[in-house]
Amino acid sequence: MKQLFEIHPWKIIENQFHPEANRVSESVFSIGNGRFGQRGNFEEHFTGQTLQGSYVAGVYYPDKTRVGWWKNGYPEYFAKVLNAPDWLNLMIRVNGHKLDLHRALRIHHFRRELDLSNGELTRDVDFNHSEDVRLRIQSRRICSMADPNLAILEYTLEVVEGTADISLYSGIDGTVRNADSNYDHSFWKGVSSEVTGNSAVLVSRTRKTDFHVGIAAHTRILTDQGELKAVDQEQSRKEVKALFEHTLHQGESIRIEKRIVIESSLNVEKSVVHQHVKERLNAVRQLELADLFQANQSVWESKWEESDIVIEGDESAQQAIRFNIFQLNATYTGEDERLNIGPKGFTGEKYGGSTYWDTEAYCLPFYQATADEHVARNLLIYRYKHLQKAIENAGMLGFTNGAALYPMVTMNGEECHNEWEITFEEIHRNGAIAYAIHDYIRYTGDQRYLAEYGLEVLIGIARFWSQRVNWSEDKQRFVMLGVTGPNEFENNVNNNWYTNRIAAWCMQYAAECVEQVKSNWPSEWMRISEAVSFQLEECVTWMDIVNRMYYPFSEKHQVYLQQDGFLDKELISVSELDPAERPIVEHWSWDRILRSCYIKQADVLQGMYFFEEEFDRETIQRHYDFYEPLTVHESSLSPCVHSILAASLGDEKRAYEFYLRTARLDLDDYNNDTCDGLHITSMAGTWMSIVKGFAGMRVQDNQLTFKPFLPEAWTRFSFKIRFRGDLKLVEVRKDGLYINGSSTASKA
Amino acid sequence: MKQLFEIHPWKIIENQFHPEANRVSESVFSIGNGRFGQRGNFEEHFTGQTLQGSYVAGVYYPDKTRVGWWKNGYPEYFAKVLNAPDWLNLMIRVNGHKLDLHRALRIHHFRRELDLSNGELTRDVDFNHSEDVRLRIQSRRICSMADPNLAILEYTLEVVEGTADISLYSGIDGTVRNADSNYDHSFWKGVSSEVTGNSAVLVSRTRKTDFHVGIAAHTRILTDQGELKAVDQEQSRKEVKALFEHTLHQGESIRIEKRIVIESSLNVEKSVVHQHVKERLNAVRQLELADLFQANQSVWESKWEESDIVIEGDESAQQAIRFNIFQLNATYTGEDERLNIGPKGFTGEKYGGSTYWDTEAYCLPFYQATADEHVARNLLIYRYKHLQKAIENAGMLGFTNGAALYPMVTMNGEECHNEWEITFEEIHRNGAIAYAIHDYIRYTGDQRYLAEYGLEVLIGIARFWSQRVNWSEDKQRFVMLGVTGPNEFENNVNNNWYTNRIAAWCMQYAAECVEQVKSNWPSEWMRISEAVSFQLEECVTWMDIVNRMYYPFSEKHQVYLQQDGFLDKELISVSELDPAERPIVEHWSWDRILRSCYIKQADVLQGMYFFEEEFDRETIQRHYDFYEPLTVHESSLSPCVHSILAASLGDEKRAYEFYLRTARLDLDDYNNDTCDGLHITSMAGTWMSIVKGFAGMRVQDNQLTFKPFLPEAWTRFSFKIRFRGDLKLVEVRKDGLYINGSSTASKA
Repeated sequence: MKQLFEIHPWKIIENQFHPEANRVSESVFSIGNGRFGQRGNFEEHFTGQTLQGSYVAGVYYPDKTRVGWWKNGYPEYFAKVLNAPDWLNLMIRVNGHKLDLHRALRIHHFRRELDLSNGELTRDVDFNHSEDVRLRIQSRRICSMADPNLAILEYTLEVVEGTADISLYSGIDGTVRNADSNYDHSFWKGVSSEVTGNSAVLVSRTRKTDFHVGIAAHTRILTDQGELKAVDQEQSRKEVKALFEHTLHQGESIRIEKRIVIESSLNVEKSVVHQHVKERLNAVRQLELADLFQANQSVWESKWEESDIVIEGDESAQQAIRFNIFQLNATYTGEDERLNIGPKGFTGEKYGGSTYWDTEAYCLPFYQATADEHVARNLLIYRYKHLQKAIENAGMLGFTNGAALYPMVTMNGEECHNEWEITFEEIHRNGAIAYAIHDYIRYTGDQRYLAEYGLEVLIGIARFWSQRVNWSEDKQRFVMLGVTGPNEFENNVNNNWYTNRIAAWCMQYAAECVEQVKSNWPSEWMRISEAVSFQLEECVTWMDIVNRMYYPFSEKHQVYLQQDGFLDKELISVSELDPAERPIVEHWSWDRILRSCYIKQADVLQGMYFFEEEFDRETIQRHYDFYEPLTVHESSLSPCVHSILAASLGDEKRAYEFYLRTARLDLDDYNNDTCDGLHITSMAGTWMSIVKGFAGMRVQDNQLTFKPFLPEAWTRFSFKIRFRGDLKLVEVRKDGLYINGSSTASKA
Repeated sequence: MKQLFEIHPWKIIENQFHPEANRVSESVFSIGNGRFGQRGNFEEHFTGQTLQGSYVAGVYYPDKTRVGWWKNGYPEYFAKVLNAPDWLNLMIRVNGHKLDLHRALRIHHFRRELDLSNGELTRDVDFNHSEDVRLRIQSRRICSMADPNLAILEYTLEVVEGTADISLYSGIDGTVRNADSNYDHSFWKGVSSEVTGNSAVLVSRTRKTDFHVGIAAHTRILTDQGELKAVDQEQSRKEVKALFEHTLHQGESIRIEKRIVIESSLNVEKSVVHQHVKERLNAVRQLELADLFQANQSVWESKWEESDIVIEGDESAQQAIRFNIFQLNATYTGEDERLNIGPKGFTGEKYGGSTYWDTEAYCLPFYQATADEHVARNLLIYRYKHLQKAIENAGMLGFTNGAALYPMVTMNGEECHNEWEITFEEIHRNGAIAYAIHDYIRYTGDQRYLAEYGLEVLIGIARFWSQRVNWSEDKQRFVMLGVTGPNEFENNVNNNWYTNRIAAWCMQYAAECVEQVKSNWPSEWMRISEAVSFQLEECVTWMDIVNRMYYPFSEKHQVYLQQDGFLDKELISVSELDPAERPIVEHWSWDRILRSCYIKQADVLQGMYFFEEEFDRETIQRHYDFYEPLTVHESSLSPCVHSILAASLGDEKRAYEFYLRTARLDLDDYNNDTCDGLHITSMAGTWMSIVKGFAGMRVQDNQLTFKPFLPEAWTRFSFKIRFRGDLKLVEVRKDGLYINGSSTASKA
């Protein structure tokens, strides 16, 4: 593993150009503002290793499904994250040759830096463009947190040696393509374009979905002799650019200010997108660059005020957690319930769709505790709005009567995944969506959410489970056949304990919530029960299933079994595996993995984590001791749950070790895949390891409780927590827990 | 279901043009000679529904694997049946307009006819090409059984009304493509071409595999005024054609004789392919067309002499069984151990590869009993020659020490299937390959085969099974996890009874054969044991597994269970399914199918069929009564096994019903997929239904035994059987069994 970045508490610094790792750096240097985002691509032309990527939240394309063998139930199309028109887009010629770091003769100095405190990405490069021309580029850019439509780019080009005839195109390029298109289709069509002097507008629309995205850009080029005027322009339906020309002598420089306004038809009428971005740009043109940067910085400061974690005594850990928190905030701000947290956020296009069960199981706690209540609420409403599609999705698989199966992966509510063993079988996701409603209400106390939105979702989910089980004559219990649990190293198993357990929990919780809403909000109950044609006997059916649900259990080991037949496997601990064969997903054939006992990520233990109050400490310890040694943690979502469990069991050493496994996942490119984008959702897991693990934070009886410990390597850590309107500072020092500066027992 | 073809005991007749079903007819009218074959495409240009298809045995292309999600263990490439250069290839213009039945103004008469007795495909069409020109085409063609390189086409064009200026290209077209190419690659490159007068040669080679295929064609065009000379020619690396011109007045006609020679580099050196086909063509040119047709007919007559089944009292059944026998003989003649029986034979390109376990489980008995011993032997040697690849295939999945896993689908020994649940898990195929060795030796008495080839294969297979099982501490038995049985409506199950049983059988048989070869052919044993580094303890290991193998069994039902957990399913008989939801594979989502109890094709019952001597009649009856009502028979290979079992259990009515389900599968296009090609391997199943089912033929103690019955609808049936050098006529009459005309009890 190569250390690409310097350790710094508030910055990610690359102080040398690593062309072979440039795609990794581009991912790490991604910035965003919840509405759009941009990989750390260079502004100017670059022919080296790069993955160009601009992304506009909520804009997707239904790509035609591609599978080896079609299975009934697969959707014909699924929504895919879109690479959007490129607005960085500077094309610079110096003495007739394209400025391109890949072709630079020598790079004397290179520094790329992301300031986590304010989201500014800067670069400083000193290089020989040719034998006699040495140049320096200094750039700085933001996706403004203060204005959800605004990006700012400042770019200085200085001639260190020689003379440079500069010709410079600044534009917007709508000819971009997705690298992961299934059939190499182009996803965009041009709608309108305009170039007027230094300003340009490009409106593109997506094929099929007909999202319109307008981008307007104003480019000012400042020289020692004053501002340049565009001398020419090029314009087509898919690309606009203005041409500037200037000659720079040794020591002279030009400074480019590019203001970019981005808006989509999610927020304005299609017909006025062009006019809208143009007008917004005209307004922004009047503002000073410094003020625009400052406004962004102020918002980031307030974000940090609510969500920072301070770690003392371990700068590498400090950098990592801030980087993770930064990316989580750059990905999702919670202002729009149509948006969600993509597994790669705005940092790559891999994976169709943007929403996995990661959102509910791993991300919700972070947003719940570090932002206003409406942020987490919007994550739940997102699923509420997809309820109809979830019902249709279940219908495609043969379920009836309003049963809802949420998709494994989605953007707009439609399924974006096509492996039968996942798509149709990894149905525990439905449980996480119900659990999130419970988790949100437990944390916020917002019981009304049930009446407004939550109950309809819970009913749809409970209906699904009640149809998905079947009565086993043989076992005289309800069973659930043909599922894939959270451990995706098992497929199509019977009676996965976690799935059976969360299914039963969902039905019980739904029945309780029906009672609650009926009693407390009778008029809402009327509306809901009519809307979903509810029959009260449904609750009876659910409770009958709950009471007679089958759970595989080993008398010998006194543990719930991951699934039927688990004890037929050879149970050989992970520690006995040949390290050369790790990760097994890369070294073993799929059938060997399936037959093995090895667990990809918490499965039974995910249940112990969700439902810890149902089990005594010894029971959890026994399951932990049985399953963890068989767990290979080959999902980035695995270590955090184990870290929290280990912490709650008092195993501080292991809790810390698990935390380390994902804390710097992307910064250190552990999995050799950061080139494709960051692991955004797993970043929330590292936050949970600290807050729920090390600090042992829980909500009990409407109060925050803590059971903290301080990792040996640290001298102190603290974090900000929002809880029911209050912002608290929680500190864990060597001598114990402090809330808002005062030493305390364990409640806040 | 539309009846496309007239009923006739020896012919398939289409007496009306069905443009909407033309692809179905093309499949049904396919002809072949074991070395190459041709769909029933029209010779002239046709813009209607058509699937152009010429196929040369053993010539394949390694197409890049295409799957939705890659799994470790998938091969990067796999062999695909190739659509080969088109040699029918007449392009005729009449008064400047292409002759094209799709554009004909009126079709007055249309008749296409396949004579099963001699493999001649004829066509007679009378149509208006334009308002004032009415034409008649009469064509006749064969793929000669007498000369494995020869095809003959005779084509008469008559002007019934009007005057026709004819320009006619006769050529060979190498620009063909596969309709099922994964990435739309072209699979052929031109090598050499030549046109000399009326003769043309085209040599093409396959990309990557570099098979060379040479085709030479000589076209004579005879008019009332004598033979035409080519007036022009066109020639490129991928296409050759000669141009003829002539004017026909009302009542006049031209007759085209096209002799085609086809050879591939499987049989001659690449460098001489061109010269070879050219010389062979020169020889064939000297021969009279009538003699060439006659030679073909003679071979077919002798084929029928050995393999005909006569059914009296049911002409539809008579036609069907002859059609099936015809296609089986056209697909595989057994002269070349590198060839095998593709699921579509020479009738379509669907499915990669040519060899499934169908060959061993369903086709072997037909060829064994209707042709010389070497034909069946070559089917076994085919697998022997792939042993090394099977060992590599097992190695890719992590098996060692010479363990062999034969591929699910193959052409050259490499796996051509890419669904993990099949590719890596439907491993019972290995058992069928071992069983075929046993079956062949039982039938032929050719014990020496073991020493020559069989034992090495058996050892590789036994080694695979011994590694594929694992010891279950829980069950204190050897178990086999993660398999797919013959019933592909279950995936990744544990302890599929059939797979466990055939695995144990393989190990036991291999151990017995080791002893036999050691005792009877000591020098061969020396060679083999050295070649495979055999340790005698291996037999001990195998027998230990055999003795302690786990078989799921229900005490309550007193049946072996298809797999662990089968009794957790809701067992609702197929008869209670809504007919509108049949076939379930088209109407139900995949997960619903998997969770259901429904069985696609014989699974436990396949084992009862293979190992019937191990079970008493009551046991077989009990299993039949338990499983058959849950079986949907949605594989064309399902009914035959059930027919044979029903017959052996004395249920003549059901035996006959099952027979009917596949007897006319393609002629009546039951499954709506005959357009893609015929179900060649299932045709062998209908032969088995009659011979093993109705006639109850078995081999016991080196003798043929019979337990016959006559289906009610029939008045008599008879068939020819080869057994250890003798050709017997077996007749089942109302009054009993006759062998070679003499009434007999049950042995031959």
